[in-house]
Amino acid sequence: MKASLPQGVRDFLPAQVHRRQYMFDVIKSVFTRFGYEPIETPVIENLSTLTGKYGEEGDRLLFKILNNGDFLAKVDQSILTKKNSKSLLPKISKRGMRYDLTVPFARFVSMHLHELPIPFKRYQIQPVWRADRPQKGRFREFYQCDVDVVGSDALVYEAELLQIYDQVFDQLGLQVKIQVNHRQILQGLIQKLDLAQDNKLITTMDKLDKIGLEGVLLELTKQEYGQQQIDLIRAYLRSSTLSEVRELLPETSAIQGIEELEEIFGYLENYTKQNQILFTPGLARGLDYYTGFIVEINDPKAEMSSLGGGGRYANLTEVFGVKNMSGVGVSFGAERIYQLMDERALFPQNLSNTIRCIILYDIPQAQSTVFDLLSTLRTAGIPSVMYPEAAKFKKQFKYAERIQVPYAIVIGQSELDSGLYTLKDLNGGTQQSLEALSIIDTLKNEIIR
Amino acid sequence: MKASLPQGVRDFLPAQVHRRQYMFDVIKSVFTRFGYEPIETPVIENLSTLTGKYGEEGDRLLFKILNNGDFLAKVDQSILTKKNSKSLLPKISKRGMRYDLTVPFARFVSMHLHELPIPFKRYQIQPVWRADRPQKGRFREFYQCDVDVVGSDALVYEAELLQIYDQVFDQLGLQVKIQVNHRQILQGLIQKLDLAQDNKLITTMDKLDKIGLEGVLLELTKQEYGQQQIDLIRAYLRSSTLSEVRELLPETSAIQGIEELEEIFGYLENYTKQNQILFTPGLARGLDYYTGFIVEINDPKAEMSSLGGGGRYANLTEVFGVKNMSGVGVSFGAERIYQLMDERALFPQNLSNTIRCIILYDIPQAQSTVFDLLSTLRTAGIPSVMYPEAAKFKKQFKYAERIQVPYAIVIGQSELDSGLYTLKDLNGGTQQSLEALSIIDTLKNEIIR
Repeated sequence: MKASLPQGVRDFLPAQVHRRQYMFDVIKSVFTRFGYEPIETPVIENLSTLTGKYGEEGDRLLFKILNNGDFLAKVDQSILTKKNSKSLLPKISKRGMRYDLTVPFARFVSMHLHELPIPFKRYQIQPVWRADRPQKGRFREFYQCDVDVVGSDALVYEAELLQIYDQVFDQLGLQVKIQVNHRQILQGLIQKLDLAQDNKLITTMDKLDKIGLEGVLLELTKQEYGQQQIDLIRAYLRSSTLSEVRELLPETSAIQGIEELEEIFGYLENYTKQNQILFTPGLARGLDYYTGFIVEINDPKAEMSSLGGGGRYANLTEVFGVKNMSGVGVSFGAERIYQLMDERALFPQNLSNTIRCIILYDIPQAQSTVFDLLSTLRTAGIPSVMYPEAAKFKKQFKYAERIQVPYAIVIGQSELDSGLYTLKDLNGGTQQSLEALSIIDTLKNEIIR
Repeated sequence: MKASLPQGVRDFLPAQVHRRQYMFDVIKSVFTRFGYEPIETPVIENLSTLTGKYGEEGDRLLFKILNNGDFLAKVDQSILTKKNSKSLLPKISKRGMRYDLTVPFARFVSMHLHELPIPFKRYQIQPVWRADRPQKGRFREFYQCDVDVVGSDALVYEAELLQIYDQVFDQLGLQVKIQVNHRQILQGLIQKLDLAQDNKLITTMDKLDKIGLEGVLLELTKQEYGQQQIDLIRAYLRSSTLSEVRELLPETSAIQGIEELEEIFGYLENYTKQNQILFTPGLARGLDYYTGFIVEINDPKAEMSSLGGGGRYANLTEVFGVKNMSGVGVSFGAERIYQLMDERALFPQNLSNTIRCIILYDIPQAQSTVFDLLSTLRTAGIPSVMYPEAAKFKKQFKYAERIQVPYAIVIGQSELDSGLYTLKDLNGGTQQSLEALSIIDTLKNEIIR
């Protein structure tokens, strides 16, 4: 039997785990500084919680878990005879795998409402599963990383989430564009255009990044928008300031959106930004549940899709019977950020090797000396290993190279006799003859340095 | 719709996440010191990898994932007509959820053999899923924590794994009994008793903790063991040193086991143990794949089952076609350890509140001053929040209490006018009037202290 993995899922080797951990640690440290606390939800959720929350495509891409035991026992024979997967599904599966972190968070807040301080500030970094067609950079099991505050409509939270984006990407070494808009402004445009609510304007505008302004306008023309409407949309998409938009959309709900963005930008007036924060009238963000401020992160140099996004939602927990829990949150596209950092070599170099020292020896009678020295190194806090048996040094140095350890202590007969061991810098190539205690001091200083 | 969770799975609130993180960080820091590196494997594995590896019960308790799309499309109508869950299962499910960390590790080593240094030292801390009947302290989604080295049969690894157990439990504040035995010793006993290989001796002996020596002997009598055999087993189970057992089982394979344990204990002669490491002839450990050294952790004060265990296995990866990969590893019963630490209040007290400071204010015109001060606190590395709007102080102090923040900065009209803010120690009750910079210095010192 050949070892194999299902499509779209991955093993992580130590160097990858260290790099991913580094990325998540940077993100977490910023979240912590801003007073957000971690929560975790289970991978397995009831399908009743998940189904219908992600649209038809989502329902299709949800991983469903087969009921345990004799799952067919209570199924009506007539359903089986019809061979209809859709009608059989609810009979043989009542649980599914986490599809995102938003719905579980809404479920969590609804269930634990009385245990939580309100406003409740939380972050959550956990994997999710989607039965998407696997392709380059797209996985079926991948991490999401969300930060949200619920239970308040204060706009200071929008401002601090923008600061979080600014500081996380700065610390990761990525220069990004932070694009901001407001659903009420888009609403005002729709109002001004005198369109029905179920128009395709927002989904079409969402393609702005891919097909450009003229592409969007062309598509809209095909959708039978009139010339006057197209002209207004062009003027709207070309504007770059809140006051331009205010002039285009007077006496519409856009005014409220504009005022909210002004308040948010106002909070950041004295804040030294590391990245551009840009009002972007064309930013739409497809998701239905946003009701106010929206934001999206793009890498100006990459052709990749966004590195994150978010916004305010008025009614996240309503579906679970908890009303009036306005919230705002953003998420980090962890897998894309990782990929970009990897391509641009933005990870610190020393991340792959936590092991600092290896002891090599070629005489079996040194074994207990080696073991004791190893214990001493570890007690001193120096991550160390020994080659597991006396062997030819050439073989042992090969192993040392393989595990990328920076220092080796070499013990042969003369070292064993004299108690002076050879400490070899495997990167620099230098070596010195030292007593055990001096070796420990030297290595401890290395770690601190 | 009421928010709900499936049976046997849990949400973790911030205080729990922090405590679990603390426990895992202690464990990881010891693993790191001993030169073990982290790996991660996916939750979703092929059922071909998982099935048949955990016995019949395991196959039953595995969570299976339904194939996506029209999963019945290619199923033979005759299978559906029979309404037989067992024969339908492989037609509609080809993937399952991780059931333990051992089989995925064997699969991992087999797949990545040429990318790994051999011997390969790894640890893995990830959740697993079992459709067990949920009960107190037993979950369907729970963490396992394994540390293994494969590709060497050197006994120094057994010795260092004992040190790891010793140091982890010491650092967590738990005093444990580390019980050690060897499969070859048990083999020698079976040989001496002249039993067939498929006898029930080991499974019966595994009940020693629960039913005691006389209970085990009684069960064996019922299994038609003769008096002479019972006498030998009694003498064996009553012995407490390797030399006693050596005398009981001469010229059997026990001798090799005894010599190996002597070598392992020899390495630890100069090591200062924090916990008892005991040769325990009655320790059997049910799992089939152990072939040498075995170990189990018990809490002397608790009636709970073991806190961990492990041993050497000669052929972990053989099923995936990779031979001669002897390994040894141990695991930590993370959920039980957590429960015990929680009951005994062994977690540091300051784990629930990462937030150090909250700014309270009752006049709307202070809002931008508050926001700027908040930014300054955060930039200085002090995890801080503000109450989201000007409100009655009583309400704000209630929130401060709820989030367990130790310091509050209070800003009213007079503070706004003077630039001297009130810093209140919410635990001690004292307060001082300070400039922003002095507040930051004070809080920074608090964090370091």
